[in-house]
Amino acid sequence: MRRSLLCCACLVGAVASYQVGVRTATRRLRGGVSNIYASYSNTIMVDDTAKAKAPPPNAVSMSKAGLCQKLTVPSELLDKTDVFIFDCDGVIWKGDTLIDGVPAVLEMLRAAGKKIFFVTNNSTKSRKGYLGKFKSLGLETVAAEEIFSSSFAAAAYLEQTKFKATGKKVYIIGEVGVQEELDLIGVPWIGGASDAGKKVELKSGYALPHDKDVGAVIVGFDREINYHKIQTAQLCINENPGCEFIATNLDAVTHLTDAQEWAGNGAMAGAIKGCTGREPTLVGKPSPLMVDYIVDKYGCDRARICMVGDRLDTDIVFGQSNGLLSCLTLSGVTSESKLLSADNPIKPDYYVDSIAQFK
Amino acid sequence: MRRSLLCCACLVGAVASYQVGVRTATRRLRGGVSNIYASYSNTIMVDDTAKAKAPPPNAVSMSKAGLCQKLTVPSELLDKTDVFIFDCDGVIWKGDTLIDGVPAVLEMLRAAGKKIFFVTNNSTKSRKGYLGKFKSLGLETVAAEEIFSSSFAAAAYLEQTKFKATGKKVYIIGEVGVQEELDLIGVPWIGGASDAGKKVELKSGYALPHDKDVGAVIVGFDREINYHKIQTAQLCINENPGCEFIATNLDAVTHLTDAQEWAGNGAMAGAIKGCTGREPTLVGKPSPLMVDYIVDKYGCDRARICMVGDRLDTDIVFGQSNGLLSCLTLSGVTSESKLLSADNPIKPDYYVDSIAQFK
Repeated sequence: MRRSLLCCACLVGAVASYQVGVRTATRRLRGGVSNIYASYSNTIMVDDTAKAKAPPPNAVSMSKAGLCQKLTVPSELLDKTDVFIFDCDGVIWKGDTLIDGVPAVLEMLRAAGKKIFFVTNNSTKSRKGYLGKFKSLGLETVAAEEIFSSSFAAAAYLEQTKFKATGKKVYIIGEVGVQEELDLIGVPWIGGASDAGKKVELKSGYALPHDKDVGAVIVGFDREINYHKIQTAQLCINENPGCEFIATNLDAVTHLTDAQEWAGNGAMAGAIKGCTGREPTLVGKPSPLMVDYIVDKYGCDRARICMVGDRLDTDIVFGQSNGLLSCLTLSGVTSESKLLSADNPIKPDYYVDSIAQFK
Repeated sequence: MRRSLLCCACLVGAVASYQVGVRTATRRLRGGVSNIYASYSNTIMVDDTAKAKAPPPNAVSMSKAGLCQKLTVPSELLDKTDVFIFDCDGVIWKGDTLIDGVPAVLEMLRAAGKKIFFVTNNSTKSRKGYLGKFKSLGLETVAAEEIFSSSFAAAAYLEQTKFKATGKKVYIIGEVGVQEELDLIGVPWIGGASDAGKKVELKSGYALPHDKDVGAVIVGFDREINYHKIQTAQLCINENPGCEFIATNLDAVTHLTDAQEWAGNGAMAGAIKGCTGREPTLVGKPSPLMVDYIVDKYGCDRARICMVGDRLDTDIVFGQSNGLLSCLTLSGVTSESKLLSADNPIKPDYYVDSIAQFK
């Protein structure tokens, strides 16, 4: 199992650092990925010089707004598309409930020779964990290689930046997904689930100890967030020279259950932003890491990849800023009135009530 | 005690809404405060029309940078100043330790006829609570009316905006200070210390209940922050129409003990910003609420009020953006090298190693 998961972990062939708040981003591709089993170190490297010199992009203004057509004739989209990238929460499932019609649509797309990838900003599971979720929902044909979780993206980013060679460790705010992905690449970590329930007992002269060997703090969704974790992250980022601050994603809300929206990792990352004044390096959507890999590996035409998601500010911006087709589904967090509002500048190429309309 | 504290609570004669992120702010004074016992409702009102039309200010660019002189001849500052506004953490004390020389300096200033106020962005205590802290440190001559805590400022803001008349309640992320101040003005609240340790037990179909009658969420420093509180605040702000989001302060770090810097309310407010996309109304520094009151009540010349603090981005910006003299003390979070760095655009008029140098 370890070997097969490591192979899965080698899929990423691009690396990206997306500095959200300061709006500096860069990605630089060197060479291609010819072998699905290639190790990270054989793939594509970060160039810090390029990073420092990169002009500040503006994802929304750089991309072309779509026509925002409601899809009534499925072939209109399917004929233009070789690869579908599906967000999961709000698109494939909501909480623990599969969205109606999804299995038949995926079967139809595979039968039509389309490539399919699933991307989720939810970092609470590893790729292995997500594979279990797909199977538990009856989606037996999904392969680990088709799944890009932000927990995996965080590990991929550390691999690409050769973090392991620094000899440092990671402090995790997050759940088991990030932990499992770091274990797979052999990067030592502390924190995570082991700091749940810890309290800071204050007394005069007390200083919370923190590990000076922490070289990166990864912040993912964590329903056991507490002040001990926040203070530890603050100390590592503010006091350990060169310590990175990595966010799996910055989604404001997420679908923990299908009954309501739940505060997302925007809360955990926002807490660390607020006590450090630092902007995180974002590895989940809308960072371009994953789409760069797919283009590189499969030699796809970006214009024939369609990003399908339920969020305007992550999924659709992500698609448009990477030159993809985009399709919003109303089965998640975005209402039709919000989509069509004059206040909303983010317009996908198409929209559907749910992806069942692809069929 | 209740009566005398209510009288203290009536001191504020101005109200301000300082929208930080969107950089819109306004304050509008109507009439003066002729009676120290005047009720809030007799004093100065928010004008929402003015608020909406107010031009976006930029506190730093609007204010004149100081010459950043190290104070070597105390009379140079004392002769220019009628009123001293002291930040507390890092100026009067650090954690639970009084800074050397402070009692003698305060005694000297009082003897010289100077007015003295103490302002703190720390919301964990009420004014009553702070009075106890001053006295426990041997500062027996301090009066409650001289203390402006951000917990008090939050209550004052609710009074000024006639929140009580809405019949709504407040959800508190924070500690006892905010609770005590709301009790004094008779505004009902939920949350706070009573939500410490609560967990969100997730299961399919589960929705965390939240009170639809919450009309404002106040976020103050809370070492018992947890996901239950974050999600409750998110639901109130995102789902209760018109629900306000009020932050006592946005300080990145604070002095819980004198042994290290601790993550401040920037973390708690950042968490709620991150899951709602909303910017808070700030009532602590650098909101102008408190200085407007002092100017109005005592008829002071702003140019003869000196703000003394240890933070450039709150204390000194607060002083400069309100037209005050400013003095940075190096006894808190700011080093001399940071102050004098070319990267630092915020220069006070004077700086001292500690306020002991005033004598």
